[in-house]
Amino acid sequence: MTQLKQQQCTVCRPDAAPVSDADLDRLLPELAGWQLEERDGVKQLEKQFRFPNYAQSMAFTQRVAELAEAEDHHPAILTEWGRVTVTWWTHTINGLHINDFICAAKTDQLAEQ
Amino acid sequence: MTQLKQQQCTVCRPDAAPVSDADLDRLLPELAGWQLEERDGVKQLEKQFRFPNYAQSMAFTQRVAELAEAEDHHPAILTEWGRVTVTWWTHTINGLHINDFICAAKTDQLAEQ
Repeated sequence: MTQLKQQQCTVCRPDAAPVSDADLDRLLPELAGWQLEERDGVKQLEKQFRFPNYAQSMAFTQRVAELAEAEDHHPAILTEWGRVTVTWWTHTINGLHINDFICAAKTDQLAEQ
Repeated sequence: MTQLKQQQCTVCRPDAAPVSDADLDRLLPELAGWQLEERDGVKQLEKQFRFPNYAQSMAFTQRVAELAEAEDHHPAILTEWGRVTVTWWTHTINGLHINDFICAAKTDQLAEQ
């Protein structure tokens, strides 16, 4: 199977089905350290990344933003001194789409750079 | 009186006094649109800025991060599609210092650019 990080986001239409519970159980273990959060009934993928200072936090934020523009899929990024919290979900369907898992995997790749 | 945006942050020592309630009542009206929030007993200054797209949100985030490094005082910045939420408080004293008001005023200047 093609790894998540090797896939591209596809256009997500409002009538697209969110990731099923069965797919969720299969996909989540592929992502190390990502938590499933639910806010106002909307499932989200979230992970906190640690850095030794603000400059490195901000550099990572910048890389995630570039990924977001390249994939045309945009997360919430919380930048603080020494840590960045990235949250992926799909606004169009108010939940999780395969795009979110692809982007989470690619976010991990950026953190390794 | 020197305007907030014209002042520089000073070093804030752990035994520095937080802004008094009287000063809070005087300073807050100088900042248009900034809300006083209290989280886990810690007072914070917060404002949401709107932008027409992600690129402009991210450009603003970058400018706020540059201000943070220049003042050696670092806010939480939440970057999302079309909006950026900036939260200033002083970790050293778990509350609000005059530095936070100075940086909030300077953040407003960045949003006007």
